[in-house]
Amino acid sequence: MARPKPLSGFPEFLPAGRMVETAVLDILRETFELHGFASIETRAVETMDTLTRKGEITKEVYVVRRLHADETEQGKADDLGLHFDLTVPFARYVMENAGHLAFPFRRYQIQKVWRGERPQEGRYREFLQADIDIVGQDALPEHFDVEAPLVMLAALERMHVELGLPQALMHVNNRKLAEGFYRGLGIGESGGEFEQVNTLDVLQRVDKFDKIGGEAVVELLTGELGLSAEAAGKCVSLAGICTPDDSFVDQVRALGVEHEMLDEGLELLRRVVLAANRRVPGRMVADLKIARGLDYYTGTVYETELVGHEKLGSISSGGRYDSLASDGKVTFPGVGISLGVTRLLGPMISKGRIAADRSVPSAVLVAVDDEETRDVAEEVAQALRGRRIPCEVAPKADKFGKQIKHADRRGIPHVWFGGLNGQVKDIRSGDQQDADASTWMPPAEDLRPRITMEA
Amino acid sequence: MARPKPLSGFPEFLPAGRMVETAVLDILRETFELHGFASIETRAVETMDTLTRKGEITKEVYVVRRLHADETEQGKADDLGLHFDLTVPFARYVMENAGHLAFPFRRYQIQKVWRGERPQEGRYREFLQADIDIVGQDALPEHFDVEAPLVMLAALERMHVELGLPQALMHVNNRKLAEGFYRGLGIGESGGEFEQVNTLDVLQRVDKFDKIGGEAVVELLTGELGLSAEAAGKCVSLAGICTPDDSFVDQVRALGVEHEMLDEGLELLRRVVLAANRRVPGRMVADLKIARGLDYYTGTVYETELVGHEKLGSISSGGRYDSLASDGKVTFPGVGISLGVTRLLGPMISKGRIAADRSVPSAVLVAVDDEETRDVAEEVAQALRGRRIPCEVAPKADKFGKQIKHADRRGIPHVWFGGLNGQVKDIRSGDQQDADASTWMPPAEDLRPRITMEA
Repeated sequence: MARPKPLSGFPEFLPAGRMVETAVLDILRETFELHGFASIETRAVETMDTLTRKGEITKEVYVVRRLHADETEQGKADDLGLHFDLTVPFARYVMENAGHLAFPFRRYQIQKVWRGERPQEGRYREFLQADIDIVGQDALPEHFDVEAPLVMLAALERMHVELGLPQALMHVNNRKLAEGFYRGLGIGESGGEFEQVNTLDVLQRVDKFDKIGGEAVVELLTGELGLSAEAAGKCVSLAGICTPDDSFVDQVRALGVEHEMLDEGLELLRRVVLAANRRVPGRMVADLKIARGLDYYTGTVYETELVGHEKLGSISSGGRYDSLASDGKVTFPGVGISLGVTRLLGPMISKGRIAADRSVPSAVLVAVDDEETRDVAEEVAQALRGRRIPCEVAPKADKFGKQIKHADRRGIPHVWFGGLNGQVKDIRSGDQQDADASTWMPPAEDLRPRITMEA
Repeated sequence: MARPKPLSGFPEFLPAGRMVETAVLDILRETFELHGFASIETRAVETMDTLTRKGEITKEVYVVRRLHADETEQGKADDLGLHFDLTVPFARYVMENAGHLAFPFRRYQIQKVWRGERPQEGRYREFLQADIDIVGQDALPEHFDVEAPLVMLAALERMHVELGLPQALMHVNNRKLAEGFYRGLGIGESGGEFEQVNTLDVLQRVDKFDKIGGEAVVELLTGELGLSAEAAGKCVSLAGICTPDDSFVDQVRALGVEHEMLDEGLELLRRVVLAANRRVPGRMVADLKIARGLDYYTGTVYETELVGHEKLGSISSGGRYDSLASDGKVTFPGVGISLGVTRLLGPMISKGRIAADRSVPSAVLVAVDDEETRDVAEEVAQALRGRRIPCEVAPKADKFGKQIKHADRRGIPHVWFGGLNGQVKDIRSGDQQDADASTWMPPAEDLRPRITMEA
């Protein structure tokens, strides 16, 4: 076999990089479970019928077929494709199992997803996502809009504190706030000054704020949609509001626009921001230009940047949707937020900016005197494992210097010599001491690989 | 959306079933890591070129294509297919990254695999596997043949003790033992009585022992291969030997065949069986009819049954291979064993024979007095989470009876009332006591869902 080359867009890690990923996944799982989210996994494939319900997205789908499929198996609605996110499969799972689930249903799902894109620099074709959603039957109280982002922020904060990952900053908005504000200006409002203008058309143009700037947006709003300069200016002013606390409320009020839906949006956004300020201070801003997909989210919306790594784009996004799925009789509203694990970690791991300090889980290498006494070394290892100390036995009864080198190459911090009552050497400091395999413990921080992020 | 139907061969679990799977995966991961195996994951796809290296297997491959692929993208050697096991991708990973890995390289890999089979009762098309392998560069000491099965047996034993899964019984043999025995009879041995007969042809027929019985095998060996009745009889006698200890050695010796390779095989098998008897007594037998794939394994081979569930077939198999991969200059010999997680759990979970006692991770439901004081309940929940107690806050300030019912439906054992100094009720016993959210702990066994297997 010639040496194979990596496939563009399908990232794979060496063991020390994979350890970073598992450390992150452990934090995600523990945080989600502490908040009562149950794990589910869905199959990797969905019928094309399920996947193409959203139309446009089909161009990114990987179709899956049996190599020796009969002609009769091809081109049917039940052809299979790899899922491209975890929302579509989750919606299908909820519909399929609704009778067996207790609502509101809180689930987390950490799985690979695939996008059938052309190979292209920086584009992943396989990547790992971690989603949480809370889904109700017919109704879902709005306090879940407050909870969902706090759970993800709690996980991101632990990654920052425990693994040295950059700080996260979540940008939050509420679609009702903008919608209510526009309606208060008479846009799309029956009897209003701009009754014929669609609020989504306004939102779509305001969404370009970051790219083209406020003045250009005003031109679009007046030129293309026929808003007055004053109304257009207010729409842009609204989009420019971004505060780390609830002072956005006064700033919006100062624009002098009134509408019931605006009040609703302001109050809900205020609750989200205040709760975040209590629980994870400094990690959330009310950012009134955030829109996220135009026809899906209906309330709170979230986007998240890594401070100092803004060019990664949003690593964690989500929001409230009024209908995850519906069978015509029952509707399932929900609120959720998704973390792009590979988007977050892939570049840092590949560039070696973050890594574990060893390539194996072992905290101890048990040296072997000679092959005749390998059993003794195995016994020591078993005693250590019985007390949850990861270890391995040296592969060969080489000279001790060579066995220490074996540990060193892998970053294993301790080497054990002799039997159950032996000696253990910390190969970083060179310290060697008598040790009893039934009581000795390495320093707690040596039990697991340490993750370090370059400064 | 009409209610979707399950896809045959793609198992999915409800949350309480998934909890069984995660409990098993936790045991596997912990056991593997305590033995120094590093986690890796490989991408779900390989090039068809890599997948079809083994010829025949191609009929079970799922081909993966972009829905809107250009014509130029199709039918090339770099077409992609879903991996059908974890060995082929691992071999490719080792070749691709050999320069960055430290050998002997110990890795575990727990991932889904796919087989593009026709839908068929009881056949999985997507399933979860857990593999461990130890791979050397050019050489790999034989003591790893002893270690690999013990690691898997240790994990299976924990599943038995901690989760109530059936006992495992591993059947072990050594390919050198049979090969040496046949050569000792003069089969395929230069100058031997049956020099022209291929030992693999003998093995292939002896492998039918279980299906057609000893007498029929003797007929095949004499009729088709031209062995003497005596030699054929000895081959069949060898295959009939199965002992829970090393008494198989004397039974083989009693057949009066001698060969250096036989001695080697006997000694290695003896070491495996004795080590297993020390570490996990009663869970391994030397079973001299076990062959496993004819042209792949070269030394020790393993198969594993669940006692009382033999019809599941082997849930965990593997062995020694002299060449996992080779680039012509360097060869990578290894020894590994694979557990079919879905094969093991799928039927039991689907039939509800094993399940968790709750459908959520939460050990506590924090009740809400009224919506005005939801913050107080959130504060209690945060205090409990700070001490790693999974909990959730009631979705609605319903009457307490209704909130208790909410907990009961999910199997949440405890309900908290009031603030940080509140009261907690064990809803199974009805006991209610004062509790301080900064110190109260539920009984340790309530912290995680309990898995129970029906008797």
